[in-house]
Amino acid sequence: MEEKIPYKIYLAEDEIPRQWYNVRADMKNKPAPLINPANGQPLSQSELEPIFCAELCKQELDNDTKWIDIPDEIYKFYKMYRPSPLVRAYFLENALGTPAKIYYKFEGNNTSGSHKLNSAIAQAYYAKKQGLKGVTTETGAGQWGTALSMACAYFGLDCQVYMVKCSYEQKPFRREVMRTYGAKVTPSPSMNTNIGRKILAEYPDTTGSLGCAISEAVEAAVSQEGYRYVLGSVLNQVLLHQTIIGLETKTALDKYGIKPDIIIGCAGGGSNLGGLVSPFIGEKLRGEADYQIIAVEPASCPSFTRGTFAYDFCDTGMICPLAKMYTLGSQFIPSASHAGGLRFHGMSTILSQLYHDGLMEARAVEQTSVFAAAEQFARVEGILPAPESSHAIRVAIDEALKCKQTGEEKTIVFGLTGTGYFDLVAYEQFNNGTMSDVIPTDADIAASIAQLPKVDAK
Amino acid sequence: MEEKIPYKIYLAEDEIPRQWYNVRADMKNKPAPLINPANGQPLSQSELEPIFCAELCKQELDNDTKWIDIPDEIYKFYKMYRPSPLVRAYFLENALGTPAKIYYKFEGNNTSGSHKLNSAIAQAYYAKKQGLKGVTTETGAGQWGTALSMACAYFGLDCQVYMVKCSYEQKPFRREVMRTYGAKVTPSPSMNTNIGRKILAEYPDTTGSLGCAISEAVEAAVSQEGYRYVLGSVLNQVLLHQTIIGLETKTALDKYGIKPDIIIGCAGGGSNLGGLVSPFIGEKLRGEADYQIIAVEPASCPSFTRGTFAYDFCDTGMICPLAKMYTLGSQFIPSASHAGGLRFHGMSTILSQLYHDGLMEARAVEQTSVFAAAEQFARVEGILPAPESSHAIRVAIDEALKCKQTGEEKTIVFGLTGTGYFDLVAYEQFNNGTMSDVIPTDADIAASIAQLPKVDAK
Repeated sequence: MEEKIPYKIYLAEDEIPRQWYNVRADMKNKPAPLINPANGQPLSQSELEPIFCAELCKQELDNDTKWIDIPDEIYKFYKMYRPSPLVRAYFLENALGTPAKIYYKFEGNNTSGSHKLNSAIAQAYYAKKQGLKGVTTETGAGQWGTALSMACAYFGLDCQVYMVKCSYEQKPFRREVMRTYGAKVTPSPSMNTNIGRKILAEYPDTTGSLGCAISEAVEAAVSQEGYRYVLGSVLNQVLLHQTIIGLETKTALDKYGIKPDIIIGCAGGGSNLGGLVSPFIGEKLRGEADYQIIAVEPASCPSFTRGTFAYDFCDTGMICPLAKMYTLGSQFIPSASHAGGLRFHGMSTILSQLYHDGLMEARAVEQTSVFAAAEQFARVEGILPAPESSHAIRVAIDEALKCKQTGEEKTIVFGLTGTGYFDLVAYEQFNNGTMSDVIPTDADIAASIAQLPKVDAK
Repeated sequence: MEEKIPYKIYLAEDEIPRQWYNVRADMKNKPAPLINPANGQPLSQSELEPIFCAELCKQELDNDTKWIDIPDEIYKFYKMYRPSPLVRAYFLENALGTPAKIYYKFEGNNTSGSHKLNSAIAQAYYAKKQGLKGVTTETGAGQWGTALSMACAYFGLDCQVYMVKCSYEQKPFRREVMRTYGAKVTPSPSMNTNIGRKILAEYPDTTGSLGCAISEAVEAAVSQEGYRYVLGSVLNQVLLHQTIIGLETKTALDKYGIKPDIIIGCAGGGSNLGGLVSPFIGEKLRGEADYQIIAVEPASCPSFTRGTFAYDFCDTGMICPLAKMYTLGSQFIPSASHAGGLRFHGMSTILSQLYHDGLMEARAVEQTSVFAAAEQFARVEGILPAPESSHAIRVAIDEALKCKQTGEEKTIVFGLTGTGYFDLVAYEQFNNGTMSDVIPTDADIAASIAQLPKVDAK
């Protein structure tokens, strides 16, 4: 039986799910609504529509529709790079000498290099359908911007990406991928926007920040006719689109009669993890099955494990709506020596609620141990993983080694969200032994949490 | 019928071929033997063994065994990243508005980013089986070195890579991938070898060359107990290992009853093209079927289309054996402004003989048109191709557009050998409009061909 499971389980094309699964419909305790910071009231569809596409606002606010159809045009694009393989990590199991059975869902086999494309194509589609000319967004290292530029090229939409200036200059490769896909990439802060001009007047030598790039992208969206702003994580709509990951995973496991004991994913804004675990959480919520679900976050940006569950701004610029989430405070900035991504101070409101209700657990891991796991994985499984994804690898290996000690034959599934081909500067630090672990002090976290906005909605 | 062909044809794991196909066995006119430059005589197994692994020498010289078993250990490794998909380019067909049916065999979904891994794992296996400690090689941009480092990590072999110094310094990313896989990467010329020390004494500021790196790698192999030298293209053994590409392609096509009219591949040293077309050439040689087979080379390094069929050194350093091949002369160096890879002055002796005998044709294409094809392909098919692979894309698009004019519904298959994630500097030149086409003059080529060695063996 065991040997009949191939190294890579590929679904057939007609087994790609036809609907996304909205886990909110099965949640008794719904995620708290987004709040308008101006009046402390939940944001309505009409308040969101000047910023986001109408259909995406609807998805953002929809806590009730359990299954949402994937439009044909998106489904067709999914066939370009999906189904993604569910890989049995025979080589890793062998290297660890563990009785555990390890599987990973690999989302890196597309040019954006990650799962981000799953939501980018959906957001671009709804923008096109609404008759928009284009979309704006921000990007740090460029993973999301790359995915969005691919999606916009496909639908012939204008794509304007505000890229943090230091990344634009020091990490030119993803910038060039975006340009190859026809995106307009602007180093932020720029002279295109009021906020950019204001910041440049005050700090002419600034190398930019993600918070500033978000502000520019939002301003650019609302100030141009026919444009909207799009975002690659955190939001409910993004998590919804990412459920394609979990649904494919579940279909592949079911096909071979495999029931996982542990499901592991890395958590930054939470959308890939939420997408992977939604169908399994759904079974837990409905009392049909039980799974151990582990969110893995960097010890240098530990929203779940050391943050607080409260309303906070989604951005450091404090112009975005307030979300109730596990947060370190919107003014929390992870150390510059943190290389492994997942730098967001907060967490998806859906996952925050689920974590608060005890449906999943969380672990924080240090970056040198993450890169050690990445290297071990790369050498035996033949895939150089993204630093973000490697957080999940670290905990998967830890759990497999526990099984080695206890003799338990647990089945472990983790999400391998992407490849590390554009993260070689961090690998170089690790290879040279110059990478260090930086963990915020309790005082650091207390100081940024002290700045949380005073909101008591609902 | 047509619609039943999926976007991606994946073979089942047990459909991965169990044997490589040695096209030489079906050739009436065998490729000319390698010649020892010292005495003008064909090289024997015993002369080759101090440099190459014994089993690989045997494969190099074997013109008769038609099917060669793939050892179980290699087969197991192949399952890590194979079978590779045969993709129906529906999106590209649609964008071109052509009645042609286009398929491509995509070899880029592994961390080495190309087909090179197919031979690297075989060569590492035979070295391990022979009880060697390690292997040495040279690398330019690093694609072959990356593949070899992955293969050596898997078998626990020491891997010493001499990397052209300017690439080592200016293209650090592939270097770091190799280091992550445990390879020792040395900038060449180095103080490790006599030849390196000599060159550095004479030219302390040299940035190195592939010819020099080859010389260092060969010296390092023969001067260390338990080491051999390995090479990533040109040789018969490499082409043999790469037939896994063509065999999988043929199995996938046969499964759906598809008979290609045109088969296209890019040609540098010739191993990927040879691997792709071998099973089809075999049918032509045996009179079972006919196909139009097109080798695509850069106009800046046009071995087939403007070279001569003669014995020549395989390396610019003139220390390697002589091979009878289409060559521009071992002293021919493509312009530094040529970005698209495929820089080798000669060509596989097998392909050279087949081309000479009229079994395939060749076309030379200019690099700006290659990058234009790459960009068009990337935008609709979602894969950013390697510049090398994009030579094949260029001609596939040209042929599909011819079909649009004539209305012919030809079936076109091409080899997409790899991804361009480490070639973004060239894409940047293209995006900025600073890329130019440089074509050697007749006088340039005549001058380097005038330096061919005087050999008239056989």
